[in-house]
Amino acid sequence: MASVWKNRLSLAIFGQSHGAAIGVTLDGIPAGEPVDMDALGAFLKRRAPGRFPWSTPRQEADEPEFLSGIVNGKTCGAPITAIIRNTNTRSQDYAVTKDIPRPGHADYTASVKHGGHADISGGGHFSGRLTAALCIAGGLCLQMLARRGVVIGAHVASVAGATDRLFDPENVNEAVLRGLWEMEFPVLDPAAAAPMTQEIGRAKEALDSVGGTIECAAVGLPAGLGDPLFGGMENRIASLAFAVPAVKGIEFGAGFSAALMRGSEHNDPFYVCGGAVKTRGNNHGGILGGISTGMPVIFRTVIKPTPSIGRAQESVRLDTLEAASLSVQGRHDPCIVPRAVPCMEAVMAIAVCDSCV
Amino acid sequence: MASVWKNRLSLAIFGQSHGAAIGVTLDGIPAGEPVDMDALGAFLKRRAPGRFPWSTPRQEADEPEFLSGIVNGKTCGAPITAIIRNTNTRSQDYAVTKDIPRPGHADYTASVKHGGHADISGGGHFSGRLTAALCIAGGLCLQMLARRGVVIGAHVASVAGATDRLFDPENVNEAVLRGLWEMEFPVLDPAAAAPMTQEIGRAKEALDSVGGTIECAAVGLPAGLGDPLFGGMENRIASLAFAVPAVKGIEFGAGFSAALMRGSEHNDPFYVCGGAVKTRGNNHGGILGGISTGMPVIFRTVIKPTPSIGRAQESVRLDTLEAASLSVQGRHDPCIVPRAVPCMEAVMAIAVCDSCV
Amino acid sequence: MASVWKNRLSLAIFGQSHGAAIGVTLDGIPAGEPVDMDALGAFLKRRAPGRFPWSTPRQEADEPEFLSGIVNGKTCGAPITAIIRNTNTRSQDYAVTKDIPRPGHADYTASVKHGGHADISGGGHFSGRLTAALCIAGGLCLQMLARRGVVIGAHVASVAGATDRLFDPENVNEAVLRGLWEMEFPVLDPAAAAPMTQEIGRAKEALDSVGGTIECAAVGLPAGLGDPLFGGMENRIASLAFAVPAVKGIEFGAGFSAALMRGSEHNDPFYVCGGAVKTRGNNHGGILGGISTGMPVIFRTVIKPTPSIGRAQESVRLDTLEAASLSVQGRHDPCIVPRAVPCMEAVMAIAVCDSCV
Amino acid sequence: MASVWKNRLSLAIFGQSHGAAIGVTLDGIPAGEPVDMDALGAFLKRRAPGRFPWSTPRQEADEPEFLSGIVNGKTCGAPITAIIRNTNTRSQDYAVTKDIPRPGHADYTASVKHGGHADISGGGHFSGRLTAALCIAGGLCLQMLARRGVVIGAHVASVAGATDRLFDPENVNEAVLRGLWEMEFPVLDPAAAAPMTQEIGRAKEALDSVGGTIECAAVGLPAGLGDPLFGGMENRIASLAFAVPAVKGIEFGAGFSAALMRGSEHNDPFYVCGGAVKTRGNNHGGILGGISTGMPVIFRTVIKPTPSIGRAQESVRLDTLEAASLSVQGRHDPCIVPRAVPCMEAVMAIAVCDSCV
Repeated sequence: MASVWKNRLSLAIFGQSHGAAIGVTLDGIPAGEPVDMDALGAFLKRRAPGRFPWSTPRQEADEPEFLSGIVNGKTCGAPITAIIRNTNTRSQDYAVTKDIPRPGHADYTASVKHGGHADISGGGHFSGRLTAALCIAGGLCLQMLARRGVVIGAHVASVAGATDRLFDPENVNEAVLRGLWEMEFPVLDPAAAAPMTQEIGRAKEALDSVGGTIECAAVGLPAGLGDPLFGGMENRIASLAFAVPAVKGIEFGAGFSAALMRGSEHNDPFYVCGGAVKTRGNNHGGILGGISTGMPVIFRTVIKPTPSIGRAQESVRLDTLEAASLSVQGRHDPCIVPRAVPCMEAVMAIAVCDSCV
Repeated sequence: MASVWKNRLSLAIFGQSHGAAIGVTLDGIPAGEPVDMDALGAFLKRRAPGRFPWSTPRQEADEPEFLSGIVNGKTCGAPITAIIRNTNTRSQDYAVTKDIPRPGHADYTASVKHGGHADISGGGHFSGRLTAALCIAGGLCLQMLARRGVVIGAHVASVAGATDRLFDPENVNEAVLRGLWEMEFPVLDPAAAAPMTQEIGRAKEALDSVGGTIECAAVGLPAGLGDPLFGGMENRIASLAFAVPAVKGIEFGAGFSAALMRGSEHNDPFYVCGGAVKTRGNNHGGILGGISTGMPVIFRTVIKPTPSIGRAQESVRLDTLEAASLSVQGRHDPCIVPRAVPCMEAVMAIAVCDSCV
Repeated sequence: MASVWKNRLSLAIFGQSHGAAIGVTLDGIPAGEPVDMDALGAFLKRRAPGRFPWSTPRQEADEPEFLSGIVNGKTCGAPITAIIRNTNTRSQDYAVTKDIPRPGHADYTASVKHGGHADISGGGHFSGRLTAALCIAGGLCLQMLARRGVVIGAHVASVAGATDRLFDPENVNEAVLRGLWEMEFPVLDPAAAAPMTQEIGRAKEALDSVGGTIECAAVGLPAGLGDPLFGGMENRIASLAFAVPAVKGIEFGAGFSAALMRGSEHNDPFYVCGGAVKTRGNNHGGILGGISTGMPVIFRTVIKPTPSIGRAQESVRLDTLEAASLSVQGRHDPCIVPRAVPCMEAVMAIAVCDSCV
Repeated sequence: MASVWKNRLSLAIFGQSHGAAIGVTLDGIPAGEPVDMDALGAFLKRRAPGRFPWSTPRQEADEPEFLSGIVNGKTCGAPITAIIRNTNTRSQDYAVTKDIPRPGHADYTASVKHGGHADISGGGHFSGRLTAALCIAGGLCLQMLARRGVVIGAHVASVAGATDRLFDPENVNEAVLRGLWEMEFPVLDPAAAAPMTQEIGRAKEALDSVGGTIECAAVGLPAGLGDPLFGGMENRIASLAFAVPAVKGIEFGAGFSAALMRGSEHNDPFYVCGGAVKTRGNNHGGILGGISTGMPVIFRTVIKPTPSIGRAQESVRLDTLEAASLSVQGRHDPCIVPRAVPCMEAVMAIAVCDSCV
């Protein structure tokens, strides 16, 4: 029941890292939506491995094949299914992880849940590779939303201790967000990228990895999207965001810093501008009572450091319960934060589409 | 589709703050589970208003009446429904908020979504009062889990700038958690409470409010609970936690601090202890790949400062779109963090039950 | 997971026959829908016990109390919850059925599923009484649909061997359907009622019971409601209809008689009338590919004979597994077909609302 | 939301008749279940076109390719996805149906719902071809159930007026059901097939088609599966069965004939046999209160005559709303009843698996 998300939209994600293919079915998208395959390809490329000097060398075309739901470049109302073949698998790299679980990975929990039948190779169904399927669905939603005036973008807010400035929560706009799409390493402050990539380089040299944070914004939403309680925009976004393997936290608007504010400071006063109700400030992150206010929707997620590292780590042999040392071979990024940026855009786009289809 | 959460368990929450009653239906609990009404009452009292010098003076017995699902003190397998009558409503306090939305509240978004038909009074269906219904369901789950060796507790981790120490993520245990249940102001460090209550007092004097953070832990879970992707423990917990009105962020294990760690530091090495696989450290918060590892499950949420404050705030008249000033009368807490503590325990309990029924 | 139905609308039904109350939560109804409580009361009265000479003498006001979702006679957008107190329970009548399951009832299966904890009294959660809750939800949907030009009505199509004529599937109209609402024993052919009531009377004298069939129609639906595959109108209607305890079969349009037709006979030709596409004949029951065609939607259900009968029946003692004889005391109708008529209207109304909210 | 069914199991079906591929994702199957691909192939062959002299000449290998969820012949706990390529499409046969909807088909309703964007070709997503995907999922469930002692089989109960005898509802057993799997034209009475095939032959000569009924049984189920109200076995089975395009009715146990019985006749008395509670007779079809009794579960469905017929039919041009005549070219069966037999077995298998995983 895990890999199928069902609300107004339905989303089923399938595949294992070293199986035949991964893919996604997205149901509930109206008929007649044009699909720009080039734009989708460009979006997926932002998540693809191998773009950075430090990236995993797994080189895959990662071109989705659409099996259904799109006819003559438009959605036809039937469920949309796309798959990506796994062509460049090297399962031998993972032979050892079946017996000796990698710290920080799902190898151990998958073994407990599925016993010896779990497909551990390359992380199996728990692999970050599955986020390519999420991005296919999200990329379609992004296009659909853009035609309705809703634009979504995200940037690397921090890597290790190196930080970018944050969105202007009141005034972030379409131009800023579209600008991020074009950047290989998307940041708001052009000077922010270098210190981040240096952190990544240092980690790589040390056979280690680093984490970071991502900030994502959606502008152009009407007020009134979402529902109370479990149907809130925060709930929908969070229930999708934690499907991205490395995400360990999410915050909206002022987020955790709200703990240090007084109400008089945190409350965003309402005012009227051009006939529309707006707020001064946007500590509420565009969501009050789970429902969009029409201000930019903004969330930040933390991406833990890639658990696969070359350094020797302590683990156990699951068959004998003896202590064992492990240094992960395989292919792995010292930092997946930039590649997770489009994943967060996908999460936002699916949640927003779900609230307005 | 908002107020019904459906996975293995189903949870439907209903009611408005100033309507006839609030309540909850919980379906999926097995038959034969004993229900200790005294223990449930004690649990609900921890959330109830009016316990603190600074609390909202709304005094309600808040005793749930069980309409179904429990016979002779045990669950009978049918859906469990309980209601709490609203007896002490003062809707006149809220007459103004229909026209002039309170900053930081759902008044405005509810008006957009439901037009003039929204029940704004006292926050309507968006009121924090609805969390009493969540706590009834959570309280039942807590009892069910406790009989299976799973114990859940939470503490006030911070109020404004005043902080408690955090759980020892490896060694937090049942005794610590049960101890928190007994404390009027639950903290780990006995000296932490006073500075927090002082912060609250100062805010109250200033007709203002303060926020904070809550940390919640579950111990005794077996490894293997939860599912990949959207069915992860993080996803389930988050999809419930954001139903609590003031929650604006959630993090698991090391959470946002993982952004500053290297993989070698963040990864928790496996080792064997007493025949069981454990981890040294618990940066993963008891969850890897969405699935429990058997280590304590730990999350923290941020509770924004109560949006209802006595100080004058800027807003707009929704009918005329003229600027308006508002100072919230009604009853409100300058800090709801301690009252939200059992809500977080409820969230954890429902999510864990959902993963193991 | 059983008593909560969730699609676009959510429906949670709770209560046991001899518990404190039964009730329903309906979520997803838009704000601003007027609720005519008198009309709802009249609708519920059609299902209520005690109207017929042969009816169960359980006399209950059966007036729903609305706890939430309705303010000043209109829906407010929050979930609608209503309860009906159980005031006239006589559990002693059912003391024996805990040990000796009544043939044709859920006593045995409830015992297997819930063990000794099952609430068997009066049928517990499996009682036909729960359909009062279904009718509250359905009654609200009926009102909402009527304002949109969709009218739903049903009649007793047969009791034992006595039959009514069937709807003219092409030309059944609002006037015919509204006329049925007014009839104590709703039939299309006024002469059909007497033979049916005679069958019921004969069964009652024989301490026995009879079953029958009900036909339900909805007119005024636009074409295009429903979805393919599992989201078809037939699937939605059926998934609700079988929640009514005595329903053991359902057919749409020509239904089972289609087995005897050729395609050239069963296919309904399209033609244009007044600018609208219609069909000559309506063997398809207003649904093609799961989606409404704009023609009347028509289904028939079979209602099995009331399993509670006064005649001695063979059963077993569940504790000792010895053979036992049972004659059901308690209160029971020799025929529940006429009381199930509004239940079928409720089923249709909920399914149609679900497809167009 | 239509093509994804989600309960304990999740089932997503995708594809259009003349698109690239059709397929299915099945989530929730435990890890470690062996998959016998030969047995699955044999099962799918029973549904495949082209087996009969009268069958559609569309010849496709229809071999599923498994993309995920199965490793070394066993399920690995990840979602199982399989696809079947569409290789033998002749879309030109359907060029006309875009403008002139075929009576009895979903062409018209698809056009209303999806406008000009609907993929009408070959029935698109509404094609009976999609049931191959359902059968892949069902075939896997059948294997899983067989290992647990639950065996499911179905037969052609009637074609036009020619009938087979029905199952002995009390004593139908595994041997009878397995025997049906082996028959090209599965009937209980060997003499029943010839009159049926004659009916089909006569219809084919007349450029017409015939319908019929199918009876399906499951034996070996434990008592206690299923849930009350919307979670009943009848509800689950029906919500799946109506996804098969030609199904227009379903009945359980005595079904519609219960309308002619008295309670004393319809109630199945309980007795003890070999320490187990059984019933004499099985009018209840193995289900009471939605929950299995341990007796054979039996349902019958009606399959309408194939709507595609060569005879000229009346229709309308959707663009001009002028009357038009249509005789369906393309490939079509004069009778799909025998091919729908495994589909009903698949429906039963998925529903039963869903109630016991």
